[in-house]
Amino acid sequence: MNVVSAIKRVPEEIKHRLTERFSDVDFTFCHGMEEAESYLAQADIFLTYGEDLTPKHLNMAEKLKWIMVLSAGMDRMPFEEIRERGILVTNVRGIHAKPMAEYAISMLLQVSRQAKVLLEQEKNHDWNRKPRMTEIGERTMVVLGTGAIAQEVARLAKAFHMETIGVSKTGTDKPHFDETYKTEQLMDVVSRGDFIVSVLPSTKETVHLLNDDHFERMKDHAVFLNMGRGDLVSTDVLLRSVRKGKVAHAVLDVFEEEPLPADHPLWEEERVTITPHLSGISPHYVPRAFDVFEDNLHAYVTGEGELINIIDLKRGY
Amino acid sequence: MNVVSAIKRVPEEIKHRLTERFSDVDFTFCHGMEEAESYLAQADIFLTYGEDLTPKHLNMAEKLKWIMVLSAGMDRMPFEEIRERGILVTNVRGIHAKPMAEYAISMLLQVSRQAKVLLEQEKNHDWNRKPRMTEIGERTMVVLGTGAIAQEVARLAKAFHMETIGVSKTGTDKPHFDETYKTEQLMDVVSRGDFIVSVLPSTKETVHLLNDDHFERMKDHAVFLNMGRGDLVSTDVLLRSVRKGKVAHAVLDVFEEEPLPADHPLWEEERVTITPHLSGISPHYVPRAFDVFEDNLHAYVTGEGELINIIDLKRGY
Repeated sequence: MNVVSAIKRVPEEIKHRLTERFSDVDFTFCHGMEEAESYLAQADIFLTYGEDLTPKHLNMAEKLKWIMVLSAGMDRMPFEEIRERGILVTNVRGIHAKPMAEYAISMLLQVSRQAKVLLEQEKNHDWNRKPRMTEIGERTMVVLGTGAIAQEVARLAKAFHMETIGVSKTGTDKPHFDETYKTEQLMDVVSRGDFIVSVLPSTKETVHLLNDDHFERMKDHAVFLNMGRGDLVSTDVLLRSVRKGKVAHAVLDVFEEEPLPADHPLWEEERVTITPHLSGISPHYVPRAFDVFEDNLHAYVTGEGELINIIDLKRGY
Repeated sequence: MNVVSAIKRVPEEIKHRLTERFSDVDFTFCHGMEEAESYLAQADIFLTYGEDLTPKHLNMAEKLKWIMVLSAGMDRMPFEEIRERGILVTNVRGIHAKPMAEYAISMLLQVSRQAKVLLEQEKNHDWNRKPRMTEIGERTMVVLGTGAIAQEVARLAKAFHMETIGVSKTGTDKPHFDETYKTEQLMDVVSRGDFIVSVLPSTKETVHLLNDDHFERMKDHAVFLNMGRGDLVSTDVLLRSVRKGKVAHAVLDVFEEEPLPADHPLWEEERVTITPHLSGISPHYVPRAFDVFEDNLHAYVTGEGELINIIDLKRGY
C-alpha cells in the first residue's frame, strides 16, 4: 500500500513513527504538490491540504482510494470528480478547535480591553488610564455553529461565566451551550448576543446568511467575530453595519476575497480588526493532524475500529 | 451613625439602595477627598480609595471607627496612626480578581498571538500569515501569590488546560493550583513556568524579591507578567533580563515609578508590553465594591454575621 504525502516539512519524528508502526505501508513524503505529482500514479492514499488538489491530479492518481485532507475547509476540493471515482475523503475536523477558540477569546479580550489604543499609547510613551476597559465575563455569546470548534469556543466562554447560545441547522443540544436554536431562529437570536461569533463553513446554506436585518437586530455594543468563512456576509453589508454603528466592532479573520487586497476599504475602518486568516494556525497543527491520520490509517489497514472525520461527498463537509 | 464617602461618581441607584436599607444611618456622599474633609469630624465610617488618606485626615476624623477602603493595594495607608487609634480597616480584596484575571489571559494571548505585529500589519494593509502563532493552552503557569486574584487567574488557566503552580509564603494548597510552593522554593519553581505571573502586593518580603538569578533560571521562551506591584523586581534587573533574552517577553502593568516617565527606557523595548496600571479597572468596580461594603455595613450595624476583608494593621494587608 502506498501513501503519498504532499505536506511540507513533516517532522522527522512523525515520519519515523509512521514508517515504524506501519511496516507494510510505503510512505513517500513530498515537499508540496508539485513534487507529489510524480508519485500520484502509485498512490493508494494521498495526504494533502486540499487547496491545490485539482481534477487533473485525480486523473493522475489512478489507484487512489483515500484522500486525507489535513484541513477542515473543503471548499476548493473537486468533490464531483471524487464522488464519481468513489474515493474516500477524510479531514482533520476538530483539530482547529483549540487555536481557533484561543483566537476568539484573544480577540474579544483585545477589543474589550482596547489593545489597539493601548499599543498606540505605548508607542507614544503615553501613560493614559482613560481608555475604557470592559470585561468579557458574564456576557452573552451567540455562536453560529455548534460543532467541535464552536463547542471549544463555548467551553472557554463558560469558563468566563458567559451565557452561551448556539445556532445550527438542527438546533440540537450540544455540550457547553446553554441554549441552541435552529438557523431559522437566527434573526431573534442575534439580538441577544454581546458577542456574535461565526465558525460556519461555506455551504449553499451559509453563503450571505447574515444580511442587513441581522446586523440591524444586533446590540449596538456587540462585537461580531467571523473566523468561519468570509462569504457568510457580504463585504457591503459588513461595511455598512460597522459604519452605521449597528455593531461596535467587527473582528474578521476571513473575507470574501483572500488575501484581502491592499486597497480594500475594510483595512481603514477604525472599528474593524483584520487578521490574515490565521485563527487556526498553530505550532501543534501538523502533529495533531498526523495523530488523526495515524488513527485512521490504523483503522484502514487493520479494519479495526472506524475511520473518523469521513466527509459526506454530497454535502461537502 | 455617620457614613462619609469620598468616592466620586457613586451611581444614584447605589446611594438610593443604601439609604433605603440603612434608614438609621446618615450617608454623606462627597465628590473626592477635598469635599469629604468638611464632613470628616462627624464620620464614624469613612469610604475612601485610600490613596490620599493622610494622618491629617485621621486627626480631623475624631469619631472615626472604621475605614472602608475601596481598593486592595494598601501601600499608601498611614497604618501606624490607624493602629494607634484602633480604627478598623477593611478593603475590597477579591473584587479585582475578575478584571485582573481577564487582563492576564488577554495579555498572554496577545503576546502568544503576536497582536503587536498583527496590528502593525493591519495598519500597513499587509496580508502576512507568517507571524508565528503559539497557543497558551497546555502550558505551565507559575503564579506568585495564591490569594483571590491568583486563584481566579489559575482558574482560567485551568480552563485552557494549563498546569498551574502557585507560590506563597506558606505554600498552602489553594483551589485551581495543581501545585503550591513556599516563597523559599521560588528559585526552583520559576524554571518550570512558560508563564510567570505575579499578583504580589508590596510588602517587606516582596520588595525586589525577584533578582537576576530568578530570570537566569526562567525559560528563554517564558513570558513574565507583573500586575501586582512594580517593586517586585528592580527596573534594572528587568531591563537586563529582557535585553539578554532571559525571558521572551515582559508584560508590565506596574512599575517602580508610576506613572512611568515618558523618557523611561522600558517604553522602547521591543519585548516589553506596557499598560498603565489598569489590570484591575472594570466598569463593575464600584458596584462590586459597594456590594462588599453593604454586606459589611449590615454586619457592623446589626452585629449579625462577620465583617469580611479586615486588614491586619501590623501586616498591612
